[in-house]
Amino acid sequence: MTEARLFAGVLSPVLTPFKKDLMPDAERFVAHCRWLLQQGVNGLAIFGTTSEANSLAAKERALLLEALVNNGIDPKFLMPGTGCCALTDTVRLTQHAVSEGCGGVLMLPPFYYKPVSDEGIFANIAEVIERVGDERLRIYLYHIPPVAVVGYSLAVIERLIEAYPSTVVGIKDSSGDWSNTEGILKRFPDLAVFPGSEVFLLQGLRAGAAGCITATANVNAAAVRNLYDRWQTLEADALNKQITTLRKTIQSYPMIPALKQIIAHFRNDPAWCAVRPPLIRLTDAQTQSLIADLEQKKFTLAA
Amino acid sequence: MTEARLFAGVLSPVLTPFKKDLMPDAERFVAHCRWLLQQGVNGLAIFGTTSEANSLAAKERALLLEALVNNGIDPKFLMPGTGCCALTDTVRLTQHAVSEGCGGVLMLPPFYYKPVSDEGIFANIAEVIERVGDERLRIYLYHIPPVAVVGYSLAVIERLIEAYPSTVVGIKDSSGDWSNTEGILKRFPDLAVFPGSEVFLLQGLRAGAAGCITATANVNAAAVRNLYDRWQTLEADALNKQITTLRKTIQSYPMIPALKQIIAHFRNDPAWCAVRPPLIRLTDAQTQSLIADLEQKKFTLAA
Repeated sequence: MTEARLFAGVLSPVLTPFKKDLMPDAERFVAHCRWLLQQGVNGLAIFGTTSEANSLAAKERALLLEALVNNGIDPKFLMPGTGCCALTDTVRLTQHAVSEGCGGVLMLPPFYYKPVSDEGIFANIAEVIERVGDERLRIYLYHIPPVAVVGYSLAVIERLIEAYPSTVVGIKDSSGDWSNTEGILKRFPDLAVFPGSEVFLLQGLRAGAAGCITATANVNAAAVRNLYDRWQTLEADALNKQITTLRKTIQSYPMIPALKQIIAHFRNDPAWCAVRPPLIRLTDAQTQSLIADLEQKKFTLAA
Repeated sequence: MTEARLFAGVLSPVLTPFKKDLMPDAERFVAHCRWLLQQGVNGLAIFGTTSEANSLAAKERALLLEALVNNGIDPKFLMPGTGCCALTDTVRLTQHAVSEGCGGVLMLPPFYYKPVSDEGIFANIAEVIERVGDERLRIYLYHIPPVAVVGYSLAVIERLIEAYPSTVVGIKDSSGDWSNTEGILKRFPDLAVFPGSEVFLLQGLRAGAAGCITATANVNAAAVRNLYDRWQTLEADALNKQITTLRKTIQSYPMIPALKQIIAHFRNDPAWCAVRPPLIRLTDAQTQSLIADLEQKKFTLAA
């Protein structure tokens, strides 16, 4: 039992490839995770929103995690998403992540019931922590109200940190609202704060953030990592502008199908296009337009 | 293989009792379902929102369903909720419901990803139907945008009915918006439409609805059923006023914990109070106030 490390730097919420029958493709998943680590990501936030993790059954997530560990990916680099609607699913996935030696978990609040009180969200996360009952557990709260609707208020974050100071160690803020990220950074200086996009990476690092967890790392990890390494140099603003421009190009399309399409195109591997419904792959017209936009920007995908 | 019946009348989305350790209490669940049928409900919409079903793992739902069937509840009366975020969970639960002989299933759309296109929702439900691949399957769409946020538009309903006319046979409309219910009734006269509350039962029946699926049936089934039986009599408006008044009293408290508290109090069975977080049981002050309100209205719970 080594002491869990605290994540810092650029993490990729890893896309989940599917086979023709829409079942998870463990082989492509392992290969993509290896490639992301080679590209310089500091950690792999598998089973996030970008991963279509909420379109996966708990058992499917567990098997994919085991595929990574069994194929030599160091679990210290893994931050699997484990927060589900059902208390018992969250407990089971979190226990599994800890037992596999994961560096941490990224935890959505229970997101079906609305409205739900701060008291209820605190009670849910506290119940998960007590049931897992393992001092190796490190939780990064996953705040993404544009998708999950339910989120973590500053009051809930404070209460969780006070009750479980060695367990609740970080947060991914995907609110897309810099004032919220700034508020968290000011109020909780010891928390590892990750904006949910590289758009706020430089601004975040200057205000004390730990890095960022960003979907586009799936196709642009090296450049985002480069900014992380050089954020205190004179080049930082130019590097920031570069990666932000690419992000804006990609997010003018539905983000998850677009990222999969980019990998499919630049690796000449059409199987990568598959998404599970309710997501829909890009149309041919969208794909042509996206690829043309990227080629115009001299984008390439590292081998 | 008997032909599946079409549900009509008053259905109760059944509360799920929990033990002290928050695990599902199959014994109390079976007893409550029996009592509801004795009280005259025409069907049991187990695993709905009121059932805290989205706080249950798929396996927990499957075991509760089996407990009912193994204890002699006729599965023709059961309409379990089977719609989950994950395609594979929805398929598994739907297959299980069909194999157990359930009269139908109540299907939430996949509710994590937002925004999601009509195309994506159609593709998800179509994929479920194709994978289950059983002509006995009867789907009642579950439209509850105030909680699930994602819902079924008229365009999606139309497309589903056209593609699967013998499978997609009904809808529960919990929008709380009469104009939406009316729109569905007018556009799809052959669909079995259930408003999600007895508030719209009488209005619904007069406009062609099949009945209603309402949380308060857990404590007031006989009266709601009485209105259903007499909706074409001169008493109808008075009966409607009576049940609506009770509903308004209850829903001035958090609905699910309040219903559990009512059962706990009037059956003198405190175990019934338990809810899974993120829901929170009523405070003592709320409970006292609720019970006082009910006693003032001469409310009693049938034995």
